[in-house]
Amino acid sequence: MTIASLEPLDPEIFDLLRRVSTATLATQLFKHGMRNRVLTDVHPIVPNAQMVGEAVTLRYVPMREDLDTLEATGNPDHPQRKLIDTIGRGQVLVCDARGDAGAGTIGDILAMRLKARGAAGFVTDGAVRDSPGIREVGLPCYARAQHPNASFHRHHAADVNVPIGCGGVLVLPGDVVVGDGEGVVVIPRHLAASVARNGFDQEELELFILEKVARGAGLVGTYPASDATRAEFQRWRAARQAASRDAEP
Amino acid sequence: MTIASLEPLDPEIFDLLRRVSTATLATQLFKHGMRNRVLTDVHPIVPNAQMVGEAVTLRYVPMREDLDTLEATGNPDHPQRKLIDTIGRGQVLVCDARGDAGAGTIGDILAMRLKARGAAGFVTDGAVRDSPGIREVGLPCYARAQHPNASFHRHHAADVNVPIGCGGVLVLPGDVVVGDGEGVVVIPRHLAASVARNGFDQEELELFILEKVARGAGLVGTYPASDATRAEFQRWRAARQAASRDAEP
Amino acid sequence: MTIASLEPLDPEIFDLLRRVSTATLATQLFKHGMRNRVLTDVHPIVPNAQMVGEAVTLRYVPMREDLDTLEATGNPDHPQRKLIDTIGRGQVLVCDARGDAGAGTIGDILAMRLKARGAAGFVTDGAVRDSPGIREVGLPCYARAQHPNASFHRHHAADVNVPIGCGGVLVLPGDVVVGDGEGVVVIPRHLAASVARNGFDQEELELFILEKVARGAGLVGTYPASDATRAEFQRWRAARQAASRDAEP
Amino acid sequence: MTIASLEPLDPEIFDLLRRVSTATLATQLFKHGMRNRVLTDVHPIVPNAQMVGEAVTLRYVPMREDLDTLEATGNPDHPQRKLIDTIGRGQVLVCDARGDAGAGTIGDILAMRLKARGAAGFVTDGAVRDSPGIREVGLPCYARAQHPNASFHRHHAADVNVPIGCGGVLVLPGDVVVGDGEGVVVIPRHLAASVARNGFDQEELELFILEKVARGAGLVGTYPASDATRAEFQRWRAARQAASRDAEP
Amino acid sequence: MTIASLEPLDPEIFDLLRRVSTATLATQLFKHGMRNRVLTDVHPIVPNAQMVGEAVTLRYVPMREDLDTLEATGNPDHPQRKLIDTIGRGQVLVCDARGDAGAGTIGDILAMRLKARGAAGFVTDGAVRDSPGIREVGLPCYARAQHPNASFHRHHAADVNVPIGCGGVLVLPGDVVVGDGEGVVVIPRHLAASVARNGFDQEELELFILEKVARGAGLVGTYPASDATRAEFQRWRAARQAASRDAEP
Amino acid sequence: MTIASLEPLDPEIFDLLRRVSTATLATQLFKHGMRNRVLTDVHPIVPNAQMVGEAVTLRYVPMREDLDTLEATGNPDHPQRKLIDTIGRGQVLVCDARGDAGAGTIGDILAMRLKARGAAGFVTDGAVRDSPGIREVGLPCYARAQHPNASFHRHHAADVNVPIGCGGVLVLPGDVVVGDGEGVVVIPRHLAASVARNGFDQEELELFILEKVARGAGLVGTYPASDATRAEFQRWRAARQAASRDAEP
Repeated sequence: MTIASLEPLDPEIFDLLRRVSTATLATQLFKHGMRNRVLTDVHPIVPNAQMVGEAVTLRYVPMREDLDTLEATGNPDHPQRKLIDTIGRGQVLVCDARGDAGAGTIGDILAMRLKARGAAGFVTDGAVRDSPGIREVGLPCYARAQHPNASFHRHHAADVNVPIGCGGVLVLPGDVVVGDGEGVVVIPRHLAASVARNGFDQEELELFILEKVARGAGLVGTYPASDATRAEFQRWRAARQAASRDAEP
Repeated sequence: MTIASLEPLDPEIFDLLRRVSTATLATQLFKHGMRNRVLTDVHPIVPNAQMVGEAVTLRYVPMREDLDTLEATGNPDHPQRKLIDTIGRGQVLVCDARGDAGAGTIGDILAMRLKARGAAGFVTDGAVRDSPGIREVGLPCYARAQHPNASFHRHHAADVNVPIGCGGVLVLPGDVVVGDGEGVVVIPRHLAASVARNGFDQEELELFILEKVARGAGLVGTYPASDATRAEFQRWRAARQAASRDAEP
Repeated sequence: MTIASLEPLDPEIFDLLRRVSTATLATQLFKHGMRNRVLTDVHPIVPNAQMVGEAVTLRYVPMREDLDTLEATGNPDHPQRKLIDTIGRGQVLVCDARGDAGAGTIGDILAMRLKARGAAGFVTDGAVRDSPGIREVGLPCYARAQHPNASFHRHHAADVNVPIGCGGVLVLPGDVVVGDGEGVVVIPRHLAASVARNGFDQEELELFILEKVARGAGLVGTYPASDATRAEFQRWRAARQAASRDAEP
Repeated sequence: MTIASLEPLDPEIFDLLRRVSTATLATQLFKHGMRNRVLTDVHPIVPNAQMVGEAVTLRYVPMREDLDTLEATGNPDHPQRKLIDTIGRGQVLVCDARGDAGAGTIGDILAMRLKARGAAGFVTDGAVRDSPGIREVGLPCYARAQHPNASFHRHHAADVNVPIGCGGVLVLPGDVVVGDGEGVVVIPRHLAASVARNGFDQEELELFILEKVARGAGLVGTYPASDATRAEFQRWRAARQAASRDAEP
Repeated sequence: MTIASLEPLDPEIFDLLRRVSTATLATQLFKHGMRNRVLTDVHPIVPNAQMVGEAVTLRYVPMREDLDTLEATGNPDHPQRKLIDTIGRGQVLVCDARGDAGAGTIGDILAMRLKARGAAGFVTDGAVRDSPGIREVGLPCYARAQHPNASFHRHHAADVNVPIGCGGVLVLPGDVVVGDGEGVVVIPRHLAASVARNGFDQEELELFILEKVARGAGLVGTYPASDATRAEFQRWRAARQAASRDAEP
Repeated sequence: MTIASLEPLDPEIFDLLRRVSTATLATQLFKHGMRNRVLTDVHPIVPNAQMVGEAVTLRYVPMREDLDTLEATGNPDHPQRKLIDTIGRGQVLVCDARGDAGAGTIGDILAMRLKARGAAGFVTDGAVRDSPGIREVGLPCYARAQHPNASFHRHHAADVNVPIGCGGVLVLPGDVVVGDGEGVVVIPRHLAASVARNGFDQEELELFILEKVARGAGLVGTYPASDATRAEFQRWRAARQAASRDAEP
């Protein structure tokens, strides 16, 4: 499967997703009957990161002592190195490390290469290494843990751009991957437009509700919103958009 | 069981507990033969939080697909919503989420409602969602993890103000719950006065010992304190209290 | 086994190790056929810590209710207290707590005593308590978790300076222990000189590579470094050392 | 909630369920949109057991040293003892032990009492004790493990006939509980009739398919069954029923 | 510590313990304030085993690649081999394998050697290997699992006859170790006589209760036994002993 | 990768492997520097099974609700069904189920189909379902657990005959898979001949040693065998082979 062959997504989708939390996206995916689209035990390694992009995938299997040596990473066809060296702008590298956090799957140099290529971020259900260095590089990065071992201590890079499991979630190449300060959610590509638009609406509604509750409103009729609250929200939103238009020169 | 029917605790108890660490409280409870009153795998979500209050409890059981829908939370009798909407000043909402961190048990809107009601804090052995938002709300909050899923992804709210387990510890409605930058300890209500007073004394003694050790004292006779050290402590404490009185206008 | 009887290590080794990351040391140990010298599930408790020192070891076994009382810690022969009170300058106390994080193995007073004795740090695969206080003390400290319970809630101190397991790794008294913002690696004493020197060289090479990659270099031939890249590195390094010499008064 | 107040189920449902495997029932519940009705980590303790009955529930929370003493079990109102002493014919006692297998929740004497009352079986996500004795008693029994500790070593019996979680599954009083040599499935009461009838049909179809495959049939068209295979099955079933009728006197 | 130097225990203690279940012994130890004397996750490997003996202990730490080679087991001072070759009649070898079941700590040849020496059994919280062969040898054997790897795949034998943890329980050399078809309990040596005698009495009482319950008695007053039931038991026991005496020639 | 394209292995290798235990094979692989070739947490489901064959592989990833329906298994190109329907004589189907035991990866009908095709066995690090039925079919079968759920409850079949991880071990199509009453070991294909021959020799030597130890021999010089013991073994083996030849007609 090659990502290149997929129908491009409307750039507006990515713009909207940058303004929606992973919590809101999880709720939107629930509405499509999907209860399990959030990676489990995968946490932000770089504080305050925001990440939106398309998944390219890398699959690890357990190492074998004779195959996984220091020298093997120098092979120009090594799947991990080749994928990182050719990753596209706006892509997120998602690794299936079988949840084994006993070795880093990238370190600071590979994070720097991803950043230099314009990648949108990095996700693994294993560990990362050189994590202080990765925080300096600043690439959005999500992992189960940080661990000084290199990938070949525990892993063998098997293949790229196949369907994988990461953090207990099916990830297909081309899925839309969103991360914030809480976690990572993976949106099936065919649902990305709908989830982005409805998620953005939900985000605005929840901002309205949060302000009401801060001012003392009770939950009944407010959260979830009754028809009356939704009507009030529409007026608030319209007023806000008008004000925003007026503020423009 | 209703909290309202319990004999009120002396407000001085809460004042003292605000000045005692959870580590010291664990030691005091050990003296009462209780080795297991600290929640396991429940961590501060909001940095530098301090929390003291009385427990109200909420019990979750596993979700069932036909019962736990998006719509169900709109029911005015939904146990979680009703409890949050009526929580009392100085109460701590403690949730039994069976240690399942695959869904948040509250998000930023419910945290805001708890704060608006004057609740003292929130504790769960599951996750919280919208955790960046919760940190902005600033309500003291302790959980096993943060996770974008909503409660209905994994949980069904069963009942309120029953005895529960949370983080491996029995929590009865009305128990006194204390949290600091390290963790959460639950004090059986009938022991609260004794534990608070003795804990405060221990805290002062340990401050005295810490200063001695910082100046180079060895451990023998100092920690634990011999009779001589305790006598020295009493003089130090008396002098400190006198100085404190003199400093008042 | 007494640490005192071991052949002293060249102080230059410790100087070099202060400038090498745990990730680089893990790679160096891999070259010696050792895939498992990084502690698993042991994390920095004090931010930005750097730690290099020689291991002294303390072994815990499970507590028994009649042996492990509050009073027992006052015994002048209590193994933990005695070891801490006599620890040497530059030593790291490494505890085998069987990975049980249900109790702290030291708190702020003992951390202060370790610091006052000139110890280089503290490592446990259990928890620490009084962790906010430990962060104030500032001793480099690595643990599986923080937990308010005292050691006697779960542990019995059995003996000192015997071979132990900590975080899944064999630790012998006298091994060289290095910690940074990522984790802890334990270097067998007989390998310390070689690992330190080669690790320092690797660290400089990786700095050179990181800068190349930041400027847009691809991975092939760069990372791992080809002979040409290594030659380029040698020139870079020589120029840097010359510049550094020139900069001295 | 009292079981007595529920509408009785047709006895034919129980007869059918005795002839259906838990694997088949899991598939039938999947057809109703339920992916999670099989208890996790709950295994047969008594070999070759078959169990069908209605759930009564018992909820445990963590013990507290002053409440959970040897003497407390002698209280005539102790929830566990009272429930066992009054359990009805054909009922299954299902315990929420929070997945904690560090203590038995019943032993051989209580298993004997359940059997004497005509209970259909016992299920816990904790342990059972006196397991060799329980195997002699012969009551169908499912648990996470066997463990010599008594319930009060780890558990406090909190209440009965409330909704519980057991093995990660919501169990309501009155749900239909089925166990075989593989595991335990819990059928929501309102689905019992449909699941039993369709499950029995599926069981017969799978027997027919198994025989075809044993004789060399390939999977395509056979499993899952095509329309042609289903027609063939209907003829086989009709012939079998006719033969069965003829064989009667 | 040498076992030889301990005061011998009355052989009657061992005779009594052979007739008491581990469940009953756990209750007796609870009466001495000990809630945690049963090994967790340690199961019978040889069916229908009964084991009573005195503990000798072996402590494993994690392997290191250069120390733990195939050749190292041939060293006449290898702690495991030496201990097995000199174990005494009626002793139980208890191993601290840190709960790591990734390698067997003995296989069939070492089990045979233990049996030839008259050892009473073998206990580990790791695995055993050659488990089909061990079942043929027939030595009572308790472990966490069975696993084909040899000990040096994961473990380094550190020392013998020191206090250890096994299955989460403190085991001192000379403690009395009892195993049955359910699990293993470790009795502190100074409690062995009391626990054996009271355990035997409890066992007889429970047999009496079990028979009453089998005949339809309710739990109240029966289990736990009221004074009246205890008096009835004493008559039953006296009659049984008289009958037993009469039956002798 | 197709198995068909691999160089066939000498049938004698399989004959030898049928007479060697997995424990012995683990030791032989250790001699080749491989410490991790035994599947972890994968146990015999069918008692007394012996299994030797060549691996074909099936890879599962997590299910997605819209892809993994009951109907999907009827697709003639479903990877699992197609692989089972075309498996070759003497092959072992090895599944990567990510260690998730929450669903069976085959049931009795598919086990019957594997048997009808002449497959040598089935291995998964997930569960199997219909396990009582599988035991009747009698195909050698190894799994982490038994579980009534069907594969589509938790899994999506992704691809076949790619490198996989199973039980923490790298499995390549064509690797030689051996199972006995203890567990499963996977031999890299290029080592099969050497491991089989040396393993068979070790097995005979250990039989000789076991008999010596049963007759009272000590471990030193016997196990591991000294040169003298090896010479004695060679005489014993020669005599045994001669006797075996004489016994032939």
